[in-house]
Amino acid sequence: MTRVGILGATGAVGRQMLECLEERHYAKEDIRLFASERSVGKTIPYGNDELVCEKIEDGCFDGLDFVLGAVSNALSKEYAPMIKKTGAVYIDNSSAFRLEEDVPLVVPEINGEDALHHKGIIANPNCSTIIAMMALAPIHALSPIQTIVASTYQAVSGAGIAGIATLSEEVEAVRSSKPVNPSVFPAQIAYNCIASIGSMNENGYTTEEMKMQNEGRRILHNDDLLVSCTCVRVPVFRSHSISLSVVTKDKLDLQDVRNAISGFAGDVLVEDHVPTPLETSNQDDVYVGRIRKDLIHENGISLWCCGDQIRKGAASNAVEIMDYMLRHA
Amino acid sequence: MTRVGILGATGAVGRQMLECLEERHYAKEDIRLFASERSVGKTIPYGNDELVCEKIEDGCFDGLDFVLGAVSNALSKEYAPMIKKTGAVYIDNSSAFRLEEDVPLVVPEINGEDALHHKGIIANPNCSTIIAMMALAPIHALSPIQTIVASTYQAVSGAGIAGIATLSEEVEAVRSSKPVNPSVFPAQIAYNCIASIGSMNENGYTTEEMKMQNEGRRILHNDDLLVSCTCVRVPVFRSHSISLSVVTKDKLDLQDVRNAISGFAGDVLVEDHVPTPLETSNQDDVYVGRIRKDLIHENGISLWCCGDQIRKGAASNAVEIMDYMLRHA
Repeated sequence: MTRVGILGATGAVGRQMLECLEERHYAKEDIRLFASERSVGKTIPYGNDELVCEKIEDGCFDGLDFVLGAVSNALSKEYAPMIKKTGAVYIDNSSAFRLEEDVPLVVPEINGEDALHHKGIIANPNCSTIIAMMALAPIHALSPIQTIVASTYQAVSGAGIAGIATLSEEVEAVRSSKPVNPSVFPAQIAYNCIASIGSMNENGYTTEEMKMQNEGRRILHNDDLLVSCTCVRVPVFRSHSISLSVVTKDKLDLQDVRNAISGFAGDVLVEDHVPTPLETSNQDDVYVGRIRKDLIHENGISLWCCGDQIRKGAASNAVEIMDYMLRHA
Repeated sequence: MTRVGILGATGAVGRQMLECLEERHYAKEDIRLFASERSVGKTIPYGNDELVCEKIEDGCFDGLDFVLGAVSNALSKEYAPMIKKTGAVYIDNSSAFRLEEDVPLVVPEINGEDALHHKGIIANPNCSTIIAMMALAPIHALSPIQTIVASTYQAVSGAGIAGIATLSEEVEAVRSSKPVNPSVFPAQIAYNCIASIGSMNENGYTTEEMKMQNEGRRILHNDDLLVSCTCVRVPVFRSHSISLSVVTKDKLDLQDVRNAISGFAGDVLVEDHVPTPLETSNQDDVYVGRIRKDLIHENGISLWCCGDQIRKGAASNAVEIMDYMLRHA
């Protein structure tokens, strides 16, 4: 039996990881949940049963095959050595290790093979990056992608349970003409868009925006990839959308691109309508539509993709990395 | 006294045109409102007074200096000859005449001079195009813009009063767990994004998306401008936002770009925070922020801009065209 721990089990991603294990029929006895001090003892439903959150302490990870991490960078760095010592594989959703050379950064459908060369830690990529790369990997396989211009439409779930609650609360405040006091986001997100996710780098791009280039390069195995990204929070609950314009090395036929996307595991080619974040919520596939020739570059292609941020953008991808490793063990 | 008629006075843009005249202290006697048969006789508040909607019939436009149009393309084409015959200047917000060679397409701060060479009709550009060009014109003046990649975040007001009502109604339906039946937009817009505005052309771009290139070329006087645009409806009430990546002929200094934008009438350079559609609602300026070097092109610049769709994107721009003509009469 594969024994799995979830680190940060009470957050939006941690809870989704548990749901993914339930979908895969993991026995209750093979799962252990870990959470911060204030959540220790808290129970979380599992099928008709429930699981109890345990304290994180010396030896707590003993006997586990995998630990799925859904905690902050700081906590991830703190616990990673404890996990490594036990021999469990740590699949980490934080960005703490994503750019470390000996840590594979993996979207299983794209570079699952990389996961097999881990040294104890495997990093789960940024949510928008996963969804964009799922749409672009089949194109990259036809001809190397050289540049990407990306504008994101990111759901509030990216800020966790607090982000989701904030959108609901702010809509309610607007409804009853009460003042909105932004806390989780830098401005009111209800009926608004905020082009600021993460902190600002000196080059004028946010940390979130640079992930599309830095992580995209590692996932696509393309060190020369250039990405100009604008990350924008929108009042959507849990699915990210991304407007993408790419230039490939060779000129591609649009029908070849469509065929490649529709044949790519985890992608759904949508041609009869325009995919939306709402319809892609609560499921694992990335929907790709609006595939068309770019009007600027001979070798350019533009498209629109949507995928659930908590699932494929985080929890499902982490669990699928584990699935991949078990299949290739 | 300048005498002004508003054609389509009961719609979102028509009502805003009337507000713009009120802000300019037009006397009630100098304004006449025209509306469809079913609105004839309807009164619309004007200051402490009110105006009555009149029927559109032969001779109804006699004696007017300007007619501001906020009706469909079909109605605009129908009434334009009647208006021209009276000698009134027709400033038309529809897209019926925007690409006709002898019809100036004008954003007064950018190409106001073009308005002076009209032959009876002046076209008001598309809303997203106006807002994007307001942000880009100062850059274009430093060095010609050659390409634009644009992704829009468009408010529901672009679909008029019905669009605004739809967002409120759908949020209310979601709140009370009632089914949402999309009518104005092709899918639910509450808590969603819809990458489909206008009808689809054979090249895979929508009519709305092609306006950014076709109209942008005329406004910037740059026939070679290439634009790849993705137009997306978002659950925001009345201000459009646009993520823009442009390549200019020459390499520009970012501080020069910032100075040019802050010195451009109608633009507000925002550096201490990220401009949002919410804060730019109900006023005329276009806010420009996130100005940074593109990471792909040596001569590339990326930025983010927001502006009120009903005001600068439509009604205010039309009234400002009239202001410009009166100043230069």
